[in-house]
Amino acid sequence: MDLINRTIKNIKPLDEKSMAAARSRQDNLTKPAGSLGRLEELSIQLAGIQGKARPVIEKKAIITMAADHGVVDEKVGNWPREVTAQMVHNFLRGGAGINALARQAGARISFVDMGVAGDLKPNTKLIIRKIDNGTKNMCLGPAMTAAQAEQAIEAGIEIIKGEAERGLDIVGTGDMGIGNTTASSAIFAALSGKKAEEVTGRGTGLSDEQLAHKIDVIKRSLAVNKPDPNKPLDVLAKVGGFEIGGLAGVILGAAAGRITVVIDGFISGAAALIATSLAPQAKDYVIAAHCSAEAGHAAMLKYLGLKPLVNLDMRLGEGTGAALGIIIAEAAVRTLNEMATFAEAGVSEGDEQKS
Amino acid sequence: MDLINRTIKNIKPLDEKSMAAARSRQDNLTKPAGSLGRLEELSIQLAGIQGKARPVIEKKAIITMAADHGVVDEKVGNWPREVTAQMVHNFLRGGAGINALARQAGARISFVDMGVAGDLKPNTKLIIRKIDNGTKNMCLGPAMTAAQAEQAIEAGIEIIKGEAERGLDIVGTGDMGIGNTTASSAIFAALSGKKAEEVTGRGTGLSDEQLAHKIDVIKRSLAVNKPDPNKPLDVLAKVGGFEIGGLAGVILGAAAGRITVVIDGFISGAAALIATSLAPQAKDYVIAAHCSAEAGHAAMLKYLGLKPLVNLDMRLGEGTGAALGIIIAEAAVRTLNEMATFAEAGVSEGDEQKS
Repeated sequence: MDLINRTIKNIKPLDEKSMAAARSRQDNLTKPAGSLGRLEELSIQLAGIQGKARPVIEKKAIITMAADHGVVDEKVGNWPREVTAQMVHNFLRGGAGINALARQAGARISFVDMGVAGDLKPNTKLIIRKIDNGTKNMCLGPAMTAAQAEQAIEAGIEIIKGEAERGLDIVGTGDMGIGNTTASSAIFAALSGKKAEEVTGRGTGLSDEQLAHKIDVIKRSLAVNKPDPNKPLDVLAKVGGFEIGGLAGVILGAAAGRITVVIDGFISGAAALIATSLAPQAKDYVIAAHCSAEAGHAAMLKYLGLKPLVNLDMRLGEGTGAALGIIIAEAAVRTLNEMATFAEAGVSEGDEQKS
Repeated sequence: MDLINRTIKNIKPLDEKSMAAARSRQDNLTKPAGSLGRLEELSIQLAGIQGKARPVIEKKAIITMAADHGVVDEKVGNWPREVTAQMVHNFLRGGAGINALARQAGARISFVDMGVAGDLKPNTKLIIRKIDNGTKNMCLGPAMTAAQAEQAIEAGIEIIKGEAERGLDIVGTGDMGIGNTTASSAIFAALSGKKAEEVTGRGTGLSDEQLAHKIDVIKRSLAVNKPDPNKPLDVLAKVGGFEIGGLAGVILGAAAGRITVVIDGFISGAAALIATSLAPQAKDYVIAAHCSAEAGHAAMLKYLGLKPLVNLDMRLGEGTGAALGIIIAEAAVRTLNEMATFAEAGVSEGDEQKS
C-alpha cells in the first residue's frame, strides 16, 4: 500500500506555464486560430503533462496485460478460457491486432502476464507478474483477496516505472482476458451506482439471451460481494481482474511520472475508473483513444469525464484503439513543433478574433 | 472534354472477388469477427479498389491545390487574398499544417498552382498548372469560362496520372485558396438544391454579421449565374474555383486508375460533389477522412453518401484531415495483411455467429 500511496502523492497538477506557452504558440501558427481543433487541445495537454512548451513524442510504448477470470465458469461469453493464453502466444509471435497497429504507431509493446491460468512458456518478450492463475468466480465470492488487489496495482506501477527507465514519452494501455468485459461492467456498476443493464454489452458478440445471462451474473456478483463504492481497492478485489488492477497501476504510475497515458477501450476504462477513484488528479494525464462499440463504454467515458478521439466501432481491446490514439497525439505534437508561426513564415494574419 | 470522358469511362466497379477474399480473411483473423469495426470495412474497400485480396499501402501522396477567388472582392472572409500565395510559400518551406501531418502519414506532397493570383517564385516542388490569375467575382458573372472549367478538371486528371507514374497506392486531396469555402458552399447549394443558409459556414472564423453577408453573396452569385444543377461543369464554371476543378479531376483520375482517394474537408468535398455528379461510380474509390467543423460539411458528406472516419473539429483544409485518413487506411490494411488467422496462430475460435 505504501507504493500506491507514494505514487498517488507524486501526481501533480499539469504545468500551467507550459500549457500557456503551447497555447500561445498554437494561436500564432500559420492557420486560422483553433482550426486544428482537438489536435490543438491535445498538444496543449501534452505540454502540461510533460512540463515543456514544446512536448516531445518519440519513445512510445503499449503495455498489454493479460489475465484470466473465474467468472468464465458462469459461461458469460462464447470463447473458451484457453484463448487468453493462446492469444498471448499470438502476441509474442506478432500476429495479433495490437502487433499490427503498434507497428503503425511506431510503438514498442510490453506484454505482461498478470494472471493467466496456467504457466506460459518463458519468452524474453513476456513480463511475468502473475498474481494468481486467474481470479476466482466473483459470482461465488471475491474475485481476489485485498492483498492481491494491492499487488496487482503495485505490479502496474513497477512496470510503468521500468518502461520509463527505458525512455518513454507516451504509453497506451491494452488488455487480454476472456471474461474481462464482465468484470469491467461490474466495476463500473459498483463505482457509479448504475444498473447492470446500463453498463453491460455483448463483449465478443453475445445473443440477446446470453446478454441477459451476463447481466444476471453481474447482478449476482454485486449482490454476493457488496463492493464498497467508496473503496476502489475493495471494488477491484471483489469484482475486478488482475490485468485491470495492473492497468490501474500503469495509469497511476504514468501520471506520477508525467507520462501521457492513452487508454484503450472498455477494460482500460475500468482500470481508469479504479485509478481515478483512487487519485482524481490522475485524469489530467489520461487521453481516451476511442469510443468502443461495447455498450456501456460511451457512458463510462462520460462518467470519467473523457472525450474519445475517434469512434471507429472497434471493440477488440489489446490496446488497438490506444495505438491509434498515440498516432493522433503524435500528430498533434507535430503541428505544435513543426509548423511555422506567421512571423516566421511571413504570412499576413487574418483579423479574426483569436480563440 | 475528351480526356474527361475517357477518364469517366475508365472508372470500373470495385473488384468483388478481391473484396470477398479480404472479407473472408478478416473473418478468420485472430479476433472476434467484426471487432475491428470500420478498419475491417476499409481494408475490404481497399481490396476492391486495388483488385487485390491483400491490398498494399506503401506509396502515399497528398495533392494540395491552390487558387484565388474573385469573390474575395465581396469581403466574404477576413483574410487578405495575398495569403493564398504566402501560404504556398509556407508549404514549399515545410512550415504549414499539411507539411507536419503529411510527415506523420509518411506521404509525399505535390503542391499545385491551379490559379493563384500573380506569379509565384519558381520552385522545383511546385507544379504550375495555372488556369488564370484567380477566378472572376462570381457575384457579377461566371467565376470562369466553360473552357477553363474543363481545363481545370483535365489538369487534375493529368496530375494524378503523373503521380501514379511515380508509384501511388493512396492519395489525399487538399486545398488552399482564400475565399474557397464561399465557392464550395455555392457549389453544394447549386447541385443539391439546398438553401445557402444550410450549406454556409464561418470559414476561417466569421462573426454572425459576416456570415449573413457571406450567405447573401452566395445567394446573389446563384441568382446572377443560374448554374444548371444537372450540369456539374456548368456549376463549376459559374460558382466554382480552379483548385476545386483540379481536385475533381484528381478524384476522377484516381478512380479511373484504381487508386484510393482520401478527401479532406469542405473544399475537397465540393470537388467530390463535382466528380461524383459527373461519374457516380467514382464514389466507391473515395474515403471521407473527417467531418470538419465547417457548418455544412456534415450535410455535404451525407449528401455524398460518405461516412467520415474521424471528427476532431478540424477546419484547416490543405489536406490535413486527409493525412489522418491515410494513416487510418494504412492501419486498416495492416490488420488485414499482418494479423494471423486462427489456423495460423493455433487459437481456438469462439462459437459466435460470424458477421
